[in-house]
Amino acid sequence: MTDIKAALRAQRIETPSWAYGNSGTRFKVFAQQGVPRDPYEKLADAAQVHACTGIAPTVALHIPWDKVADYADLARHARELGVGIGAINSNVFQDDDYKLGSVTNPDPAVRRKATDHLLECVDIMDATGSDTLKLWFSDGINYPGQDDLRARQDRLAESLAEVYDRLGEGQRFLLEYKLFEPAFYATDVPDWGTAYAHCVKLGPKAQVVVDTGHHAPGTNIEFIVAFLLREGRLGGFDFNSRFYADDDLMVGAADPFQLFRIMYEVIRGGGLTDEVAFMLDQCHNIEPKIPGQIRSVMNVQEATAKALLVDRDALAAAQAAGDVLGANAVLMDAYNTDVRPLLAELREEMGLAPDPMAAYAGSGYFEKIAAERVGGQQAGWGA
Amino acid sequence: MTDIKAALRAQRIETPSWAYGNSGTRFKVFAQQGVPRDPYEKLADAAQVHACTGIAPTVALHIPWDKVADYADLARHARELGVGIGAINSNVFQDDDYKLGSVTNPDPAVRRKATDHLLECVDIMDATGSDTLKLWFSDGINYPGQDDLRARQDRLAESLAEVYDRLGEGQRFLLEYKLFEPAFYATDVPDWGTAYAHCVKLGPKAQVVVDTGHHAPGTNIEFIVAFLLREGRLGGFDFNSRFYADDDLMVGAADPFQLFRIMYEVIRGGGLTDEVAFMLDQCHNIEPKIPGQIRSVMNVQEATAKALLVDRDALAAAQAAGDVLGANAVLMDAYNTDVRPLLAELREEMGLAPDPMAAYAGSGYFEKIAAERVGGQQAGWGA
Amino acid sequence: MTDIKAALRAQRIETPSWAYGNSGTRFKVFAQQGVPRDPYEKLADAAQVHACTGIAPTVALHIPWDKVADYADLARHARELGVGIGAINSNVFQDDDYKLGSVTNPDPAVRRKATDHLLECVDIMDATGSDTLKLWFSDGINYPGQDDLRARQDRLAESLAEVYDRLGEGQRFLLEYKLFEPAFYATDVPDWGTAYAHCVKLGPKAQVVVDTGHHAPGTNIEFIVAFLLREGRLGGFDFNSRFYADDDLMVGAADPFQLFRIMYEVIRGGGLTDEVAFMLDQCHNIEPKIPGQIRSVMNVQEATAKALLVDRDALAAAQAAGDVLGANAVLMDAYNTDVRPLLAELREEMGLAPDPMAAYAGSGYFEKIAAERVGGQQAGWGA
Amino acid sequence: MTDIKAALRAQRIETPSWAYGNSGTRFKVFAQQGVPRDPYEKLADAAQVHACTGIAPTVALHIPWDKVADYADLARHARELGVGIGAINSNVFQDDDYKLGSVTNPDPAVRRKATDHLLECVDIMDATGSDTLKLWFSDGINYPGQDDLRARQDRLAESLAEVYDRLGEGQRFLLEYKLFEPAFYATDVPDWGTAYAHCVKLGPKAQVVVDTGHHAPGTNIEFIVAFLLREGRLGGFDFNSRFYADDDLMVGAADPFQLFRIMYEVIRGGGLTDEVAFMLDQCHNIEPKIPGQIRSVMNVQEATAKALLVDRDALAAAQAAGDVLGANAVLMDAYNTDVRPLLAELREEMGLAPDPMAAYAGSGYFEKIAAERVGGQQAGWGA
Repeated sequence: MTDIKAALRAQRIETPSWAYGNSGTRFKVFAQQGVPRDPYEKLADAAQVHACTGIAPTVALHIPWDKVADYADLARHARELGVGIGAINSNVFQDDDYKLGSVTNPDPAVRRKATDHLLECVDIMDATGSDTLKLWFSDGINYPGQDDLRARQDRLAESLAEVYDRLGEGQRFLLEYKLFEPAFYATDVPDWGTAYAHCVKLGPKAQVVVDTGHHAPGTNIEFIVAFLLREGRLGGFDFNSRFYADDDLMVGAADPFQLFRIMYEVIRGGGLTDEVAFMLDQCHNIEPKIPGQIRSVMNVQEATAKALLVDRDALAAAQAAGDVLGANAVLMDAYNTDVRPLLAELREEMGLAPDPMAAYAGSGYFEKIAAERVGGQQAGWGA
Repeated sequence: MTDIKAALRAQRIETPSWAYGNSGTRFKVFAQQGVPRDPYEKLADAAQVHACTGIAPTVALHIPWDKVADYADLARHARELGVGIGAINSNVFQDDDYKLGSVTNPDPAVRRKATDHLLECVDIMDATGSDTLKLWFSDGINYPGQDDLRARQDRLAESLAEVYDRLGEGQRFLLEYKLFEPAFYATDVPDWGTAYAHCVKLGPKAQVVVDTGHHAPGTNIEFIVAFLLREGRLGGFDFNSRFYADDDLMVGAADPFQLFRIMYEVIRGGGLTDEVAFMLDQCHNIEPKIPGQIRSVMNVQEATAKALLVDRDALAAAQAAGDVLGANAVLMDAYNTDVRPLLAELREEMGLAPDPMAAYAGSGYFEKIAAERVGGQQAGWGA
Repeated sequence: MTDIKAALRAQRIETPSWAYGNSGTRFKVFAQQGVPRDPYEKLADAAQVHACTGIAPTVALHIPWDKVADYADLARHARELGVGIGAINSNVFQDDDYKLGSVTNPDPAVRRKATDHLLECVDIMDATGSDTLKLWFSDGINYPGQDDLRARQDRLAESLAEVYDRLGEGQRFLLEYKLFEPAFYATDVPDWGTAYAHCVKLGPKAQVVVDTGHHAPGTNIEFIVAFLLREGRLGGFDFNSRFYADDDLMVGAADPFQLFRIMYEVIRGGGLTDEVAFMLDQCHNIEPKIPGQIRSVMNVQEATAKALLVDRDALAAAQAAGDVLGANAVLMDAYNTDVRPLLAELREEMGLAPDPMAAYAGSGYFEKIAAERVGGQQAGWGA
Repeated sequence: MTDIKAALRAQRIETPSWAYGNSGTRFKVFAQQGVPRDPYEKLADAAQVHACTGIAPTVALHIPWDKVADYADLARHARELGVGIGAINSNVFQDDDYKLGSVTNPDPAVRRKATDHLLECVDIMDATGSDTLKLWFSDGINYPGQDDLRARQDRLAESLAEVYDRLGEGQRFLLEYKLFEPAFYATDVPDWGTAYAHCVKLGPKAQVVVDTGHHAPGTNIEFIVAFLLREGRLGGFDFNSRFYADDDLMVGAADPFQLFRIMYEVIRGGGLTDEVAFMLDQCHNIEPKIPGQIRSVMNVQEATAKALLVDRDALAAAQAAGDVLGANAVLMDAYNTDVRPLLAELREEMGLAPDPMAAYAGSGYFEKIAAERVGGQQAGWGA
């Protein structure tokens, strides 16, 4: 139990700056009260999540949504709030130029512009001290024949190589894959295999990031996790959950057993380290955002605690014996355990309130930002 | 062949006013040139589609996107353009009040407001002469437990009954179902069975509308079409196509064979009449909108022509004989026929150009609207 | 807690006779040791499941797999073993005549034969005292055009009406739906809507049975449960679980949270009564069969216990207030509770061993049947 | 057109020996008349398919279903019939030992046995002159925890390496992937990425084979084809079609447009050569088998002809111009063309009857085998 607590104490979950801003669907973005107007306010909100949970010490930025004049100042602001800057997320999907793609666009001028943006993101990594660039491309096509699938791979490879070469010592990029949306016929990086193949060609600084909402129905995500860890190519997670498509619900809300299985494979594969980035990427379209993040961090933590409780010796013995029901039972015993008392205890040992949700609700923070943050432009996706 | 041409000549496909405005995904709406600024301009664009195809004589309106001060004037404007007003589409998903639902909202005041909007739509039907109200509800919940699934059905039934009672002579409503989006855990009308059960309780003026993009993966849509026709409950279609979710691509673009099978069941079930509304509901996110509509109308027409070509006597004989391959071959023979020459001939007989796409491209209409429609607020979803 | 225990004590789960026989995939049926050779031995195995769990007092039969000369004798044998005969399951999919369908076959002679079999099943209900007939039809077609979708509905309706009319006082039938397999293009009862529509036309003795593995990906099963209960048409469940298709794994093994949500809707809708039949329908292809059934019964029981623990007043209050996270948290609190101690306590109060799996393992029953059941023909599907 | 005809004339499609035997689902195998009793009779049936189509000159064998005492004699028999031996398919899923896996089984003795079988298949390649080994593993697990996902990859890699090393000059193996069935939780080679990663580590003699029915819903298969061709790792196809899962229907029957898109990517990627094996892998559960194969060969041929008709210059120009509708239209023009007259002409130039289905029906072959092949054991899967 000491080991388990130590592992839980060392766990690090990164929250994304954009989770604190408004989000929605193509049908409607419902604005909420107290939403940040700039990156400084986003960091302040993220700091609340860390203050309540104790395991969310970094914040991912999204460029250009989080563009500021002075990144060193932003990083200092973060430090003062008790948090740090995490991954830099590029955005090459919101300029009108990107209608037919960014780095895979048939127009070389658009490709140049997109790649330049990615290089600029590495500059921001240098300025903020971030060591991770997260690359998600919305690139793809909506209609068969619209563009050449293979030529787009060539263009993608060319851009990735240029970015890879720009990475400095201790820097890496994570390549994200997604089955569909916003492209509806073919996406240029649709699955882990595509991301993996590009990364292998580039070298060790290129790794795959698994967004748990980006798969075809029925995909066994924990298999992918196990496989990528075996290959040394699992760079991190974008956690969220889904019932249908890329629903971006709170992680663990749709299928907590799946989250447990994923965390089990992480632990079994030696991935519960700082080498793998555990990031949230969610949209709190209808629920309040800071509590939504706190609950999500808790859900990952609970799944991790359960996964750590698996009796691996008993499991290995049952597996070796071909005892199907026995091996399954070992796993389920851990899953069926109520780990909330353990986590409450851990928090108190860490000097935190035992219930992060209650702690936040009682902190008065929401009332404060709701009152203060009036006027200005609420942060959002600007879609 | 004379019968086939007569059937094709009588076919009516309705285009939606919102297809001419901007649309996009939650990631980005790419604005286009020449997009209408008001319902009058939308009707003008729709009239072009009819002018080129000869079979798109009505236009669906969306309230409040198409709200005008004087609906009689709008209807007259349509008539002058050679088109008419089709179905009235309600919108109870874009007010901030509807964050947790419209007619199924836990708050009775919101439900009242939503139902009042639906009743207002019937007023607009009276004013425009439209005989069809199309009801799509984005209502649903994102998280298990968020609201009570059954109570929401009670509320839905109550609102539908009130609207049903308001319908006048010769008016009807079509109830639309959708598996998910924007709700991501449970949608209040997720499938045809739910829509059907509500309609049966209400009476003959309530019918089901099939949006071809609103099903779970693997759903056999033509089965639903055949079943609803057998029950006398198929009110119409919202045509579009998809590879993944509700992609809203051009109908026939993703799976032309499916569209053919659907049209075959329509014809076999006696549904190729004015009792069934054949409407488009698509988003031309990256392609130009008027040509996108023209191509879509043509795709439905081609599928209809092929379905009309099926040798039904030969098919029935093979089916009765249990000749699996023979029966399938009869269907495929029709599908594999190139009906484009037939349709070109038909158009010329109707006094139209043989190739609607070329006719539109050569008309100068796009150049005209691109030049004229500058300034003002382009129409869109206002999400 | 007293109420919860009383509800759990009253719960009844029915195991299927065929779960004790061999099963497999089209690739291979792996035979197991100690498998029953006849219906009498199947009942003996089922009695073990009841002896260990205390809540599995009935056994479903499958005709003709469980055909015997004297059903009264079989029923008496069951009573002596402490169990009773449950639902009678018809089988119209294994005669060569049924290659192109049973009650929907284009050949009227085959339809007659199939309907006669269904009527014979009602005779067996009379003979065994069973009050429930379960109808699953493998009927469907593999290729578009192979047969007429609508004519098949007519034939289905005709056969169902004849069977319905044959039902005696206190008898009912449950109509099962399934998306696909063994038919691969169109199934004649593919979804709950189809089953529901037929049942409504027939009358109150016709109800829908929900097999949890028979849906399209993404289908919200608990919504269907809630809807059918609201309509008074939920006749029962065939429980199992799946990751992909109709995998027929142990219920609760793939998505225990889904099972909990289903049981919550059952309870919320007043369905935890003898009016709804809670049946298992699974294939223990690789795990031992009796323990597989015991584990499955326990999984349903655990989900039921958690669902009973939901604080419904708190839930209703949060729902009414539109408190998305609060309402979800009430549900999750119950789900996250470890109910195994409660159930162990309940079992001891019922005079049972606290751990059914351990009780069975220690009973020596398996060693006994493995030794005794040699020779003869092991029961299976005979595919 | 000369080029197109030349390409079509050079096309080679391989039929599988097991398609001529009985097949079915886990519910029932419906026996047919005239089914072969041994590999010699299977080859005779395959020769008919080649005689009628002119482009099916090789036959894949399945070991042990096609085990014979003298493979050289079997190969000579094939030559006499005008066909040749194609790929050797291994079978490590039908011995009782393989209940928990073959090359990934936790028991090293079972793994040894399985790998030995694979090596034996290479011996058979030597004996028959076959240059291709097709490896499909049913290996996987049904329950979370049942076995260790990563250890199974280690075991798989070890076995593959041993087989790879045994390959002679001019020999290769194709590694097949499949999402699920018969394993229902995790399959050891579930997707192309897994197969690809193993092949890349092994070397150029290891390639990926794409079975068109083995993907998750929504997977863009032609993207995978394009990607693997770009990487030089597309070894071949197992063609069939599906509406739901691995339905194994006739290729082109469920989604002919998809088949066309796949063939377009094959041609665009330079894959219409003997380097890529175009194999059928289907189950004619209810339709007659030889005509089922003939129709399937024709469907691939028609899709190929349409794909060859694509005006690639016009397509490239529209793509470069970002003309979404124009580029799509170029592709669709080819797809919408009725290529049956062209193919009838080609067949007559090749000395064949213009309609292969009619030619077979008129040949008297079926009547002959139905009369002759009585007694003995019909070939099947022996599940």
